Amino acid sequence: MSSNKVKQIWSAGDAVVNAWLSIPSGFAAEVIAQCGFDSVTVDMQHGVQDYMSMVECFQAMRSHPVTPMARVPWNEPGIIGKALDGGAYGLICPMVNTAQEAKSLVSYAKYPPDGTRSNGPIRAGMYSAPGTYQKTANEEIVILPMVETKTSVENMEAILDVHGIDGVYIGPTDLGFSYGLGPKVDHTEPKILRIYEKVVKECNKRKLYPGIHCGGAEGAARAINMGFKLVTLSDEAGLMSAYAKLQVNQTREMVSGK
Amino acid sequence: MSSNKVKQIWSAGDAVVNAWLSIPSGFAAEVIAQCGFDSVTVDMQHGVQDYMSMVECFQAMRSHPVTPMARVPWNEPGIIGKALDGGAYGLICPMVNTAQEAKSLVSYAKYPPDGTRSNGPIRAGMYSAPGTYQKTANEEIVILPMVETKTSVENMEAILDVHGIDGVYIGPTDLGFSYGLGPKVDHTEPKILRIYEKVVKECNKRKLYPGIHCGGAEGAARAINMGFKLVTLSDEAGLMSAYAKLQVNQTREMVSGK
Amino acid sequence: MSSNKVKQIWSAGDAVVNAWLSIPSGFAAEVIAQCGFDSVTVDMQHGVQDYMSMVECFQAMRSHPVTPMARVPWNEPGIIGKALDGGAYGLICPMVNTAQEAKSLVSYAKYPPDGTRSNGPIRAGMYSAPGTYQKTANEEIVILPMVETKTSVENMEAILDVHGIDGVYIGPTDLGFSYGLGPKVDHTEPKILRIYEKVVKECNKRKLYPGIHCGGAEGAARAINMGFKLVTLSDEAGLMSAYAKLQVNQTREMVSGK
Amino acid sequence: MSSNKVKQIWSAGDAVVNAWLSIPSGFAAEVIAQCGFDSVTVDMQHGVQDYMSMVECFQAMRSHPVTPMARVPWNEPGIIGKALDGGAYGLICPMVNTAQEAKSLVSYAKYPPDGTRSNGPIRAGMYSAPGTYQKTANEEIVILPMVETKTSVENMEAILDVHGIDGVYIGPTDLGFSYGLGPKVDHTEPKILRIYEKVVKECNKRKLYPGIHCGGAEGAARAINMGFKLVTLSDEAGLMSAYAKLQVNQTREMVSGK
Amino acid sequence: MSSNKVKQIWSAGDAVVNAWLSIPSGFAAEVIAQCGFDSVTVDMQHGVQDYMSMVECFQAMRSHPVTPMARVPWNEPGIIGKALDGGAYGLICPMVNTAQEAKSLVSYAKYPPDGTRSNGPIRAGMYSAPGTYQKTANEEIVILPMVETKTSVENMEAILDVHGIDGVYIGPTDLGFSYGLGPKVDHTEPKILRIYEKVVKECNKRKLYPGIHCGGAEGAARAINMGFKLVTLSDEAGLMSAYAKLQVNQTREMVSGK
Amino acid sequence: MSSNKVKQIWSAGDAVVNAWLSIPSGFAAEVIAQCGFDSVTVDMQHGVQDYMSMVECFQAMRSHPVTPMARVPWNEPGIIGKALDGGAYGLICPMVNTAQEAKSLVSYAKYPPDGTRSNGPIRAGMYSAPGTYQKTANEEIVILPMVETKTSVENMEAILDVHGIDGVYIGPTDLGFSYGLGPKVDHTEPKILRIYEKVVKECNKRKLYPGIHCGGAEGAARAINMGFKLVTLSDEAGLMSAYAKLQVNQTREMVSGK
Repeated sequence: MSSNKVKQIWSAGDAVVNAWLSIPSGFAAEVIAQCGFDSVTVDMQHGVQDYMSMVECFQAMRSHPVTPMARVPWNEPGIIGKALDGGAYGLICPMVNTAQEAKSLVSYAKYPPDGTRSNGPIRAGMYSAPGTYQKTANEEIVILPMVETKTSVENMEAILDVHGIDGVYIGPTDLGFSYGLGPKVDHTEPKILRIYEKVVKECNKRKLYPGIHCGGAEGAARAINMGFKLVTLSDEAGLMSAYAKLQVNQTREMVSGK
Repeated sequence: MSSNKVKQIWSAGDAVVNAWLSIPSGFAAEVIAQCGFDSVTVDMQHGVQDYMSMVECFQAMRSHPVTPMARVPWNEPGIIGKALDGGAYGLICPMVNTAQEAKSLVSYAKYPPDGTRSNGPIRAGMYSAPGTYQKTANEEIVILPMVETKTSVENMEAILDVHGIDGVYIGPTDLGFSYGLGPKVDHTEPKILRIYEKVVKECNKRKLYPGIHCGGAEGAARAINMGFKLVTLSDEAGLMSAYAKLQVNQTREMVSGK
Repeated sequence: MSSNKVKQIWSAGDAVVNAWLSIPSGFAAEVIAQCGFDSVTVDMQHGVQDYMSMVECFQAMRSHPVTPMARVPWNEPGIIGKALDGGAYGLICPMVNTAQEAKSLVSYAKYPPDGTRSNGPIRAGMYSAPGTYQKTANEEIVILPMVETKTSVENMEAILDVHGIDGVYIGPTDLGFSYGLGPKVDHTEPKILRIYEKVVKECNKRKLYPGIHCGGAEGAARAINMGFKLVTLSDEAGLMSAYAKLQVNQTREMVSGK
Repeated sequence: MSSNKVKQIWSAGDAVVNAWLSIPSGFAAEVIAQCGFDSVTVDMQHGVQDYMSMVECFQAMRSHPVTPMARVPWNEPGIIGKALDGGAYGLICPMVNTAQEAKSLVSYAKYPPDGTRSNGPIRAGMYSAPGTYQKTANEEIVILPMVETKTSVENMEAILDVHGIDGVYIGPTDLGFSYGLGPKVDHTEPKILRIYEKVVKECNKRKLYPGIHCGGAEGAARAINMGFKLVTLSDEAGLMSAYAKLQVNQTREMVSGK
Repeated sequence: MSSNKVKQIWSAGDAVVNAWLSIPSGFAAEVIAQCGFDSVTVDMQHGVQDYMSMVECFQAMRSHPVTPMARVPWNEPGIIGKALDGGAYGLICPMVNTAQEAKSLVSYAKYPPDGTRSNGPIRAGMYSAPGTYQKTANEEIVILPMVETKTSVENMEAILDVHGIDGVYIGPTDLGFSYGLGPKVDHTEPKILRIYEKVVKECNKRKLYPGIHCGGAEGAARAINMGFKLVTLSDEAGLMSAYAKLQVNQTREMVSGK
Repeated sequence: MSSNKVKQIWSAGDAVVNAWLSIPSGFAAEVIAQCGFDSVTVDMQHGVQDYMSMVECFQAMRSHPVTPMARVPWNEPGIIGKALDGGAYGLICPMVNTAQEAKSLVSYAKYPPDGTRSNGPIRAGMYSAPGTYQKTANEEIVILPMVETKTSVENMEAILDVHGIDGVYIGPTDLGFSYGLGPKVDHTEPKILRIYEKVVKECNKRKLYPGIHCGGAEGAARAINMGFKLVTLSDEAGLMSAYAKLQVNQTREMVSGK
């Protein structure tokens, strides 16, 4: 397996700026892959994506220097295996609430003896000499369980102690929901910020890398400055929509203002 | 056929702000359809689009108050018929260089006795009582041949005299190419601006509506202020890419600046 | 979230006439959405449908006054979340045999504090102001576990007591199988009719709404007259096939009879 | 090439009952292919179909005893070659107004020396021993130019004299349009019926087979009784929609009538 | 349900030569279906396949005398039901480690009273008279749990005792992994060969049929000669790739050798 | 525009070994792209390919060192523009019979002032700095009209004199048809070989590069040894099918021979 740019960036002490794909289109993926991101994650949970569109996106972004990652729809071995075989070099898994669930995730994602992943990296293995992918896959693939509920916050240290994960990924809107704050993205409530600080601290202690979903450049930069090592800049549909609205409004204003 | 919002805006003396779809995805289309545009054009010429993706985009944008339009890949009766049957309420046709080509375009797009369009509005007819679509289609559908070469500029008045067109649509990059200026979007060269002024004037004279492809809000507003009545704000992939780059750069700057 | 037509019909004391989509085509969906049904259900269990075709069908039917619903392939949180995020306003879930399974279903389908649904209504949220979908989703979305085995009949009252469901949906062919009667649709056996009567009575007692899969107008009308509040009129492939055979036979008879 | 059922039926003196596919779905195609039709035509002109969906439909109907045919979007050599290579055993071509256009159609559809079709029957050739398809393709493939305008009626005899066609196919709604009668299907106007009689008579004279698009069993039977040898029974979307509306209405009536 | 060619071959005492589809394309499937294989398996686990591509492949291979089978991505009732409803006449299920897991598999795949499969064979039922598919499906469908871990080898006899399976299918690369030998296909290690001998012997004892995944003709023939009754000849992408490389090299050699 | 490997190989005096894609699958394309070919051509004429599948194949092969090329279905400006905008670095165009047709082809494929191609290289332009693609596209893109009829052989010198083409591409089966020899691939008839010799000689005279479609390594090597500079090694479906049949037969023989 070729080496994973995300891990290289982390080794260099830097933070990864991650893109997020909700549009099921290889063309959208290759456009995004050229915008300066370090990694690009296909969101099979909430995005309008499934396994096949993930493969298309991965194929289209393959010639660009971005790490292909996937958020799986659930902590389920079938889709986790398919995401990895399809070429994911990183996995973000939603709603991991306990150490046991984190262990299951690791088990689904690693070959024996570290786990129970089944062999057959149909696309993932194509980019290195036959049989070599499997030699380093367990080390190279990034595994990030999502901490996004009160329960998972309470179990945070046990989750972080699970061997084989590379960090955790914060889902701020679910976290907000879970704490009765509603589905917000870039939280500023002290209650939530204290959780973030703890995540960062506990990850650092274990040489793990905390990640977080953000709502734009400002939130992303703030998160990096707080110590997060992987930040997502909204999804591409959100970026497109925000800018389209801005431009339409600007157009109308410049005209009505004449 | 239900009435065409583009024509209503024109009747009210206003300019249409048009979106442009290059991504072959119904989801991208419905996101864009909610951003405040008046019309949304699926680009089957240069966009990563074909007939099927046009239908998907039209289906997805149908519940939003935008006029569905299509740029066809060429002035060819097969695809023009399919675009209209598939639900286009407006057609932009590339590379119309002569009055004869404009007449062919009109002929392909209108039912007898105004043209030779074949009957069968499989989707387009579904939104009104059976048989009623055909009664007003010839009046409601917008037809815009593209003026985008030196030849078409020279033939402009003859083209504008062709009965059945609703205006013309400027393709600035091809126009630039044709005049030896390279593929620019928002031209400011006097040579080109004089052509624009002439297009606007000649259209006004004939109660036609000039349209133009722009590179963003600034160019679009300037075009409207020059008298253009339909302006396109870049394509959605361009908007997405521009904003993604901007946000990635901002993120990195805010971090490196700490 | 905009209000749910199914719930409005129920509030008015009427029965919902539901369509059923097995053909993975947005075009087929928009044709069916214009035939007078109150709701249209994409069948991801037995239909030739998956998540992506569900989204396409939902997009295509969005401009018609029908409630989009989905039958999920199984009581599994990943696909239930995706169906809802993709725009389903109602869920039919197969093979719910116990109160515990019904509780899981409710949990997967509702946001905290009523359940554990993860936030991210990518399409579903697009039709109301940002952040408002989540405020009413728990109330508006219809949840119908399927009663279609002997076990679920025996557990019927416990299932109906589960907080958060809106009723149950009878799968007659599986029920027939389970009772050794074979896969029939419009049952008339007293043994089955007594189950139906009990379902209707127990639902009424709890202000819940019983639904049932039927084989055509006759069975559907009889079901409504028995007290069912949501009836499905065969699937669209079945309607198409039945009418095509009828018309082919009529044609041949009218000819051979000349 | 295996022999063509349509030609066999004609040889036996019988009429072909033809299905018409507008829904781009292999599943819909295989459902229709089992309803008793003799041939099934994928409509790439007005249907929501393109080359790829035609291939899917042909694949899905291959195991049923129906002749796969295609209506091409236009009399254009590229798509005619693709339709035949993709497996069409019959071609219906719209808007053939002159003998010259009919000659072009024949030329595009037949191998040398009868025409200029390019060799490469990628799917069509797969069902016989290598190299054998080409030996009989010119004889087996059915070619039906459409007579659907006043011009083509005036040129009817010259068109029918073109060597290589197997008959003509009437497009009644375009014919109605062309004669100022509007887009009706099952015409009863004497003016149109006289055209039909002439088509039948002139075809018989030349041992050709006249075909016609109908609106259901009644019109189809009447056409056969007039001498037409290939009748289309509406499209499958129309059959589905008609029956769905009927069943919904019946359901509501049986309920409201209680 | 029509009878299953795989079972007929087994009854005749012969071995089944099985193809394996990783390419999500109906066209690739119909090409492979004509190459002399007895059965063709769509690999939804490691192949670039999902439910929809499986359906497309099944449709395209339907007219050829091959048994359509599927490897499901996981032992999960939703996808197992969908594979069977979509037309699979055989199931290969990965990572079945215990008798309990094998029992679950059987339960998901058989109708009551033998299991809990839900009724709705949307495509599978289309090839026989209505209601007849269900009468023989439990007998005709082949069920092969995969033995591919040390655990499953240890539990082999208990797994083989599970009523309703037709044999087991060896996954050699996972087996190699599990025994610390790495992901090889055609094993020759005595340790592994002894397992194979035991599988064959224990299957024979119970009138079950052992199957195995091979890397080409040589391995497949050796496996048959060892007593395996279903052998897979690599996947179609592997065959294509191997031959393409061979031909490219031969071309270059014949040229450089001039 | 990045430089074209095909032109580099030619400059070095070598021959290009070209792959040919008939299967509409990005996965098949990326498998083939790793087999040692210099260029990979998507066949939109006889292959089961269209514009969208061409884009998918190009995306999937982008990270491999192969030149993406397309055979267009016909010499038509719409699809030629779309093929180039979609990323083709080379065009093979069927049935070019006259110098005039070759001039049209060049005109459709080159920007002004060399031709009339419309600007908008949506994918093709993405791999270099904005605006740079257009600067070298006219020089880098390979244009190969097909010589495959008696007429084109008679017009060969006039065709080769057309400014802007890079050579011609022989279609042997159509050529065989045209000369009454039937659809063979690797011709050995003196009549045809003399044509080949003339093509090579006339190309050499003009510093053009002759290409030819072959049926495997032997024919390809012979063609290179005759002086052809681009040889196609059958299509990928043919390679797959040939090897699958071989392996199935070998398996059965090794078993029956035991």
